[in-house]
Amino acid sequence: MTKVFLKKKIANRVLTGHPWVFGNEVGQIEGEVNAGDIVDVFTHNGIFVGRGYINPQSQILVRLLTRDRNETIDEGFFLHRLRKAWEYRKKLGYVENCRLIFGEADDMPALIIDKFNDYFVLQTMALGIDRWKPAIVNALHEIFQPKGIYERNDVPVRELEGLEQKKGFLSDPFDTNIIINENGLKFHVDIVGGQKTGYFLDQQDNRRAIQHIVKGADVLEAFCYTGTFSCHAGHYGAKSVLGLDISEHAVNTARRNAELNGLQDICKFQAVNAFDQLKQWTREDRKFDVVILDPPAFTKSRENIQKAITGYKEINLRGMKLLKPGGFLVTASCTNLVDPSMFLETIDMAAKDARKRLRQVTFQTQAQDHPILWNIENTTYLKFLVVEVQ
Amino acid sequence: MTKVFLKKKIANRVLTGHPWVFGNEVGQIEGEVNAGDIVDVFTHNGIFVGRGYINPQSQILVRLLTRDRNETIDEGFFLHRLRKAWEYRKKLGYVENCRLIFGEADDMPALIIDKFNDYFVLQTMALGIDRWKPAIVNALHEIFQPKGIYERNDVPVRELEGLEQKKGFLSDPFDTNIIINENGLKFHVDIVGGQKTGYFLDQQDNRRAIQHIVKGADVLEAFCYTGTFSCHAGHYGAKSVLGLDISEHAVNTARRNAELNGLQDICKFQAVNAFDQLKQWTREDRKFDVVILDPPAFTKSRENIQKAITGYKEINLRGMKLLKPGGFLVTASCTNLVDPSMFLETIDMAAKDARKRLRQVTFQTQAQDHPILWNIENTTYLKFLVVEVQ
Repeated sequence: MTKVFLKKKIANRVLTGHPWVFGNEVGQIEGEVNAGDIVDVFTHNGIFVGRGYINPQSQILVRLLTRDRNETIDEGFFLHRLRKAWEYRKKLGYVENCRLIFGEADDMPALIIDKFNDYFVLQTMALGIDRWKPAIVNALHEIFQPKGIYERNDVPVRELEGLEQKKGFLSDPFDTNIIINENGLKFHVDIVGGQKTGYFLDQQDNRRAIQHIVKGADVLEAFCYTGTFSCHAGHYGAKSVLGLDISEHAVNTARRNAELNGLQDICKFQAVNAFDQLKQWTREDRKFDVVILDPPAFTKSRENIQKAITGYKEINLRGMKLLKPGGFLVTASCTNLVDPSMFLETIDMAAKDARKRLRQVTFQTQAQDHPILWNIENTTYLKFLVVEVQ
Repeated sequence: MTKVFLKKKIANRVLTGHPWVFGNEVGQIEGEVNAGDIVDVFTHNGIFVGRGYINPQSQILVRLLTRDRNETIDEGFFLHRLRKAWEYRKKLGYVENCRLIFGEADDMPALIIDKFNDYFVLQTMALGIDRWKPAIVNALHEIFQPKGIYERNDVPVRELEGLEQKKGFLSDPFDTNIIINENGLKFHVDIVGGQKTGYFLDQQDNRRAIQHIVKGADVLEAFCYTGTFSCHAGHYGAKSVLGLDISEHAVNTARRNAELNGLQDICKFQAVNAFDQLKQWTREDRKFDVVILDPPAFTKSRENIQKAITGYKEINLRGMKLLKPGGFLVTASCTNLVDPSMFLETIDMAAKDARKRLRQVTFQTQAQDHPILWNIENTTYLKFLVVEVQ
């Protein structure tokens, strides 16, 4: 097997558990370098560090899959890892839907698998893991006897790895418009056309966090996408719910989700630009009891963090102004580029500008099926905050 | 009314919402200064800041009760504030037990009121609020028709205010050994003899967080006090639970709590020094599936933070070593002197020393009936962490 030797002065990062080895951290390589192959990584003086896959076309030259020299990377390896990940989710109480594999946090760099009851959607975002798709599919069959497996590899990041963007069946074709159960509600999932893997499982624990505060409330949700928070609000006893999203298609799905749960009289949706609408209603002095803001990532690059923060501040300021005194703001941010303290500071700034005082009800992360490793920053990405606005 | 003028160069703190005015922040005072009286606070150039109570014997000269010039501090004021606080707790879903008033976070500096179904326990930790005890008691009668009210003013901090430590009935005497319901379990509360107000309500939301991970598990709880986490573990399906506490009296109550819930065959308790016991069992290589650590504050002063951190690190390291691979550590710290990031760093250091890798399951604060105000540090005090230990 090809041997990759780290430079003498490399960052402690790799040795203390981070699975990424950057090209500029490598001193020499013994053996052939074939993109996608499994290689062994050593310190400069030959101490075994780990085993992973290599791609000279990527900035991340090697991603480690194991630090156990006796562990072979083969079909059995993937079966074992997937089984372990599923056992972990079951221990945390997940039964039907979960993120089964959350990349680095499950020691499976660049691999995402979402489980929607009997259906599985996967993303292989690096060449070295893409190669093992057949093994992963076999493992899914062995553990779950799935009704369908689909790949949502329509992600630009694959191109950095020299991979094409694609999506398609990894099993016999099946009806990709499915219905899942979440927190006692039902939701349409469009595996082919929905965002990311078709559905945002990362908010499934947080959606329960609005249970009490929406009771009897007039609720506004901006950036409602397919209306999952809105439907939860209706289900938990809101008097009225209004969801806004710029996408006509998302709003149509939101309406279908409301109907699916018998909430069509409570939950209404409008296809509008939420920024503009919030601004207009602030001028008109409209008021709600609860405002929910679950916007898309306002940035995907470090260069635009300031722009993103301006965006978060703007919508949160508007949201606060639309609340009755003592109302609740439910606000989230899903980009790992804005860290938790930066997010709280942004909300605090918005409150100062809006001349509001906040009391924190809860501050959470993504759902527990997306575990957090403290030494791998991008595993902490979702911020979910509920505050009372006085 | 006596007028207190802030110095020109005072900290922004008071103006941006902190209710404490320190003696050295005050320029001049117009009128008599009678300890405990209500005074008005102004900026150096006469802009109204707020109204509160004064105590020249305390480092905190004035604690503000309101920033509304038209709000009179009288019986009605306390009735209004208590009603508002109760409405807030009800909105968050609290029905039976809650911290009704959490001092500064409810604009009632130095006042704590815990509601245990029909019984109320209060602490008035400053002279200016102690004076209003009759008004507070009347308000409780008006809102709740309580079966009993008790003061647990046996707190040393009162002496800084020139107040004596005391405890006793503020209503007709009643049987102070009561039973409360929490998360589907029942617990004995000893209003007179229990720690603080008799029971730690601040973990009531967190106790639910162990629901899934304890299923079928062998659970160890160190510093178990009256066994509330232990009983929750039993209730949620643990195979066995062992609770340790140095206090024979606490352990007896823990046993009675287990019996009260029919869990006496699952939950066992030992009166031992947890530090020593954890150390011994590490040597004997005993293993558990879940270890719960909910120790008392290891420090009450800033001078001893390092000692506290050493203590937290030590017990967490021991806890990790007592876990089977993939077991869960449930760990808390209740002192506001160790802030959340310091706490996480301490756990991280313990993991490095124990050569364990952690995956964060959840990181929470105290229960939602203890709201957090970002500008008042001591309102963020409880850290509650669940990690998988690999």
